[in-house]
Amino acid sequence: MAAKDKHHSTAIASLLNDVRAARPLVHQITNYVSVNDCANAVLAIGGAPVMADDADEVVEMVGIASALVLNIGTLNRRTIETMLLAGRRANELGKPVVLDPVGAGATALRTETAKMLLRELKLAVVRGNISEISALVGEAGTTRGVDASGLEGDAAKVAVRLAKASGASVAVTGAVDVIADDNRIVKVANGHPLLTRITGTGCVATALIGAFSGVIDDYSLAAAGGLVCLGIAGERAAAVHSGTGSFRVGLMDSLSGLQVQDVLDEARVHVE
Amino acid sequence: MAAKDKHHSTAIASLLNDVRAARPLVHQITNYVSVNDCANAVLAIGGAPVMADDADEVVEMVGIASALVLNIGTLNRRTIETMLLAGRRANELGKPVVLDPVGAGATALRTETAKMLLRELKLAVVRGNISEISALVGEAGTTRGVDASGLEGDAAKVAVRLAKASGASVAVTGAVDVIADDNRIVKVANGHPLLTRITGTGCVATALIGAFSGVIDDYSLAAAGGLVCLGIAGERAAAVHSGTGSFRVGLMDSLSGLQVQDVLDEARVHVE
Amino acid sequence: MAAKDKHHSTAIASLLNDVRAARPLVHQITNYVSVNDCANAVLAIGGAPVMADDADEVVEMVGIASALVLNIGTLNRRTIETMLLAGRRANELGKPVVLDPVGAGATALRTETAKMLLRELKLAVVRGNISEISALVGEAGTTRGVDASGLEGDAAKVAVRLAKASGASVAVTGAVDVIADDNRIVKVANGHPLLTRITGTGCVATALIGAFSGVIDDYSLAAAGGLVCLGIAGERAAAVHSGTGSFRVGLMDSLSGLQVQDVLDEARVHVE
Repeated sequence: MAAKDKHHSTAIASLLNDVRAARPLVHQITNYVSVNDCANAVLAIGGAPVMADDADEVVEMVGIASALVLNIGTLNRRTIETMLLAGRRANELGKPVVLDPVGAGATALRTETAKMLLRELKLAVVRGNISEISALVGEAGTTRGVDASGLEGDAAKVAVRLAKASGASVAVTGAVDVIADDNRIVKVANGHPLLTRITGTGCVATALIGAFSGVIDDYSLAAAGGLVCLGIAGERAAAVHSGTGSFRVGLMDSLSGLQVQDVLDEARVHVE
Repeated sequence: MAAKDKHHSTAIASLLNDVRAARPLVHQITNYVSVNDCANAVLAIGGAPVMADDADEVVEMVGIASALVLNIGTLNRRTIETMLLAGRRANELGKPVVLDPVGAGATALRTETAKMLLRELKLAVVRGNISEISALVGEAGTTRGVDASGLEGDAAKVAVRLAKASGASVAVTGAVDVIADDNRIVKVANGHPLLTRITGTGCVATALIGAFSGVIDDYSLAAAGGLVCLGIAGERAAAVHSGTGSFRVGLMDSLSGLQVQDVLDEARVHVE
Repeated sequence: MAAKDKHHSTAIASLLNDVRAARPLVHQITNYVSVNDCANAVLAIGGAPVMADDADEVVEMVGIASALVLNIGTLNRRTIETMLLAGRRANELGKPVVLDPVGAGATALRTETAKMLLRELKLAVVRGNISEISALVGEAGTTRGVDASGLEGDAAKVAVRLAKASGASVAVTGAVDVIADDNRIVKVANGHPLLTRITGTGCVATALIGAFSGVIDDYSLAAAGGLVCLGIAGERAAAVHSGTGSFRVGLMDSLSGLQVQDVLDEARVHVE
């Protein structure tokens, strides 16, 4: 690994320390499938989660949060409105907004809602799989629900395109995660296939990125931080567990027990 | 076990292979209590789950799904409307619709919603406990919430009645599961009492039936497939775990690790 | 421990027996983050959970329940209305209503909703952390989301104030839990710091109090029962598990395996 990559591992290790010291409050407007894992993952990494999705309180909740995560996994008219309200307030306050366009490409509602949020809000990070991000840059993806298809090779291309169009750091997650902003590409090779065998690990990745975004304004590094930590935790859990129930439990154990030294030793991050 | 029963075990083992090969997308409009387990169980058995419940997208989502599961566990006016929309679209497209009438008999809203869905939709499978299914055929049940009462002996009777009235395969789950359609009764003896000590195993059963319904149009066999796999997984988990937390984890491990040979060896299915 | 404290341990042990014998149905209108844990915890302690939150059914569901739990963790206009409907019906029927004012103090919507429920309903128990309960008695708390701040020493003061103002038993949970009503203060010293590292343990505490309230009308004792059982289960789980994923599983195992003798041996309850 090149010197500049070692520098990135060190930076991410330092960020993990910062999350645990600052305990950023991560306000999440998210789906009801993986919400519990998103809350527990933020706690495990050292942040504090709060879920609030009513129009009568999200503006105020954003005011006390360090970052806002918008996840369209089970979107509806009511929550689309509140995502926009919360996102605008976060923009006014200069707080990072992280978007997970779950299932973009699968239905027009999801694609259009994600595009609307991209248009109306200044986003810090967008994280999705190759199908979802492709749908947002007008590529004909092959989204089937929230499931990524075999377009890994194009990850960097679509990430760069959406990053240029939106000004956000764009993370396309897959076997190798690719994070693009307007001046660099970061790749994260940590992870394990079992992460695709349980529901919500994409949402958890985004929630962790929210926590890291709460402590640094280099959002590509924040995205790399979340993805490295989740990836290492996945590797460690998969070393012990093969059943998906135990793996899910072990993933949370690994996140909660993750040490700075583990990141220094095990991060596989590469900058281009 | 008679020859025709062995034939059924073989058929179910083969179905499990089909689920893992085809990876059917199971669109679920379900409750927020057990939704995470329903998603993880479908993944564990080899399918792909997607949850979407907004009127603006369910019609489109049904279009890419292999099966639709409707679960009234935490129904409300908004989701009742979208269940009907999604169900009608699935009927137009000839895709199987599986209903879980959670808590029918406990409140008029649940009983009437389940009856309305039975009347308005052509259902592939209805799965409930004896109290719930009894409520749908006008029997005075003793439903207490989502809890079955001591009417096991009448399971076949009410299953047959609802099957005749609706044209669906009707699965009444209990110590022995009974599945009726208009020309046979299938009984599944797999399972373990610990399955009643954690929430959502009924919902999980229905979700698994959804996955199996996505790969075969003999819906009684699909129902048997889901119930045999859940039952064996429950037996295997209970052999190792007695606490309800560990049992829940072990159940998911057993589902994700379930092999075709396990079904051949351990299925207790009987056809009358 | 003084004789009267031993008397309380005995009373709580006896209550645990009563819960398991009576299997009270606990109707919960609660948040979608911790709802699954709340259902499984009520099952583990020996009760039966039912979640229902639509205006068209909550009045009827309260009619068959033994206790009603209102939790504002992800409140919205629709569920605020149904909490009020359900609570009024429970009051008419003389059934206990237990309130968890999650995040009171964090936003005006939460504070005002909790105050409205306190004003409109006769509550059996209110359980919150020091920040939440302080917000309800007009103290300037330092609530940050659902997170308690360093006001432990004032727990008894605010508990007594809210108890006097509302007529409810008020439980302020923390390192030592304090329960106040108009003629005594009960302290529960069971528990473990890991309980604060996973989401929803406050909600679970309230759900367990709901189960105990379903079998006795001394609501301070019911609150102590729920908190002692959760505290002992937390201690036992923490003795075996340090990762937050395993701890959460172990907590449910400990609740489901908790014996009357364990309560007699390990309860740390003190009456002033």
